[in-house]
Amino acid sequence: MENGGGANGNQWGFKANEELKTASGITVRGVLNSLLENLNKNDTRPLIPLGHGDPSAFPSFRTASVAVDAIVHSVRSARFNCYSSTVGILPARRAIADYLNRDLPYKLSPDDVYLTLGCTQAIEVILTVLARPGANILLPRPGFPYYEARATHSHLEVRHFDLLPAKGWEVDLDAVEALADENTVALVIINPGNPCGNVYTYQHLQKIAETAKKLGIMVIADEVYDHLAFGNTPFVPMGVFGSIVPVLTLGSISKRWIVPGWRLGWLVTSDPNGILQDSGIVDSIKSFLNISSDPATFIQGAVPQILEKTEEEFFSKITDILRETADICCDRLKEIPCITCPKKPEGSMFVMVKLNYSLLEGINSDMEFALKLAKEESVIVLPGITVGLKDWLRITFAVEPSALEDGLGRMKAFYDRHAKKQ
Amino acid sequence: MENGGGANGNQWGFKANEELKTASGITVRGVLNSLLENLNKNDTRPLIPLGHGDPSAFPSFRTASVAVDAIVHSVRSARFNCYSSTVGILPARRAIADYLNRDLPYKLSPDDVYLTLGCTQAIEVILTVLARPGANILLPRPGFPYYEARATHSHLEVRHFDLLPAKGWEVDLDAVEALADENTVALVIINPGNPCGNVYTYQHLQKIAETAKKLGIMVIADEVYDHLAFGNTPFVPMGVFGSIVPVLTLGSISKRWIVPGWRLGWLVTSDPNGILQDSGIVDSIKSFLNISSDPATFIQGAVPQILEKTEEEFFSKITDILRETADICCDRLKEIPCITCPKKPEGSMFVMVKLNYSLLEGINSDMEFALKLAKEESVIVLPGITVGLKDWLRITFAVEPSALEDGLGRMKAFYDRHAKKQ
Repeated sequence: MENGGGANGNQWGFKANEELKTASGITVRGVLNSLLENLNKNDTRPLIPLGHGDPSAFPSFRTASVAVDAIVHSVRSARFNCYSSTVGILPARRAIADYLNRDLPYKLSPDDVYLTLGCTQAIEVILTVLARPGANILLPRPGFPYYEARATHSHLEVRHFDLLPAKGWEVDLDAVEALADENTVALVIINPGNPCGNVYTYQHLQKIAETAKKLGIMVIADEVYDHLAFGNTPFVPMGVFGSIVPVLTLGSISKRWIVPGWRLGWLVTSDPNGILQDSGIVDSIKSFLNISSDPATFIQGAVPQILEKTEEEFFSKITDILRETADICCDRLKEIPCITCPKKPEGSMFVMVKLNYSLLEGINSDMEFALKLAKEESVIVLPGITVGLKDWLRITFAVEPSALEDGLGRMKAFYDRHAKKQ
Repeated sequence: MENGGGANGNQWGFKANEELKTASGITVRGVLNSLLENLNKNDTRPLIPLGHGDPSAFPSFRTASVAVDAIVHSVRSARFNCYSSTVGILPARRAIADYLNRDLPYKLSPDDVYLTLGCTQAIEVILTVLARPGANILLPRPGFPYYEARATHSHLEVRHFDLLPAKGWEVDLDAVEALADENTVALVIINPGNPCGNVYTYQHLQKIAETAKKLGIMVIADEVYDHLAFGNTPFVPMGVFGSIVPVLTLGSISKRWIVPGWRLGWLVTSDPNGILQDSGIVDSIKSFLNISSDPATFIQGAVPQILEKTEEEFFSKITDILRETADICCDRLKEIPCITCPKKPEGSMFVMVKLNYSLLEGINSDMEFALKLAKEESVIVLPGITVGLKDWLRITFAVEPSALEDGLGRMKAFYDRHAKKQ
């Protein structure tokens, strides 16, 4: 090669950090990319994306106009073209504290709030902060694999406790007690649940708090789907139990406002006893944010308007349609014998369903099911292995109702074609 | 404490990762925060911020209206509320490739471009990718301390080469050769220069490329101040020499469009021989982006309009005012005997100036100078120690001309008050 370019790499002294592949091999994004690469390009039908929680492209899920207006107003003001402060601008932090205070028995201050790039950066921040040598963290199975990816990247040991399908995906608290030791730093819950679509009762959350207190560990409460509860169980923030156990609440406007691409989230210390402050966690959060990227300042500038001015009507429109699509999803899945749904979803955008391979010909894994379904029907579902549960699928019902009907109809046709002959 | 809250931390099993404090202790942001905390709150004069490169609040530096319109159009379209792809959306990557191709002897493709949260995330990505055990990287002194912070966080060893004030802040290439060994992976240059305000000639950049090739290391070219050159030396992108040595180009709209808060940057492989691909660097970049945060999708959606439609008039307005303020800065600094400017800036937003303590009474360090100046005159300048050069100051001239005159006048008064009596 001219110019001495070493195609064989011998001349050049740099190599990549190979650990990154391990850390990133297990993300939802990575698996979805593999499925998308497997589509049949000759299929003229529209792709039905039941693999991830982003219905923003569908007309029924269009965000509130007040939120768009807030962005426009903020960027036109020219007041927010500047760098942000490390923790986020004060008006945004104050608005988020006020928003969360509506549901809490004590008052958060703006100083309890740190702005992040969606909920994912909030996960990155807290897992990095907790990753001291030897530490371990308890994660739910099934769960959200970004936790595993970030823990791996930070060399934080992961221990999994089960969510129990027979108990409405409640945390197996006996398993939590058995897993924890003196190096355990935290327990993660995701409520409303991703991937299970469950919503925890006040009583179960209280038990989680008491268990964590007994073990001396904090609770990381991923509430990115906050208020997306449409069944019989109301959403209760974990921060309600912040006096029992220190809680780190993670949230975002991504899901409730259907704007995941706006990358605006938060990390909040729901900890009226100040234990996270005393233990150095708060200082460490600030240190890490000091070398981290911030959400765009003008999006931060729009947060007060977005949180204060969005009308109840928008929120109820979204929960109504989620209730409707969850119903459609469960009803239509009943017509597909190889799929069982142990628990009808009451929140978030997902349901976990179990595959029965004995009714299928030539399909022996959830990944195989998802790959063939993508190729033959242009329907994307997430293999359960991605979220820690082999032989299951995660299906999102948060799509336009007509698209959902179409997609589930195609899954039925897929089953009919692959059903084992009796 | 009630509820067993362990103010002494005994009951709770979590502690923070203490390495984060070390990594974040040396950022510009951290030092500026300390100076801001030191202001005299009774001073009714406006604060003059000569400490950082963000003139977006000043009327003369207001961004192009076409850029604001592009954001408004993008968010109103509702096409970009969704999650982004890992590497950034294609229209934005294509627009950035086209933008950079105007100045290159070969053609970048959109696949060479990765969107990042400003230039800082581009730094984070490449330093993380290069941080395999034992590796070291060559950084300029003075430089931009975010490199040191991120290298420390990733356990990548830092070795410093000097920029030579007597040679217009050129790279000391002999030092580079002496520092490099078989574990050296890259050399970083910042051009136009932060903190020195220099612009490298074509000839010097070529020498840098040839030195790096000889050593078998890549060049990381931080061009966040691209095209902000207003002296006799035109800006030449390092990518011009991509056939000699693989170049990673880092850039952003933050500086040229005066919108640092929009958090839109890029990492580009300027490498026509494909060496970064062959060596696994490209795969590793993708892996890390897979577990990283993305720029807001609707800001990405605005990128083609911003890059293609901004008129030359806006850019020349900005370089004209930078030329004017650089002139004001150098002229007024000549009136302050304890400060020497070895090289008039030709680019970026900064100048490095040397302190002579023998002319001062009771001031013996750059940090002391900056702290007292902040307290007594409400003028912020950056102590040179922050950027690796003790006994110097980094001063930004990128502020409204009237504010600059005011700030430098106050520095003169400060000198007069603290001058050593003959």
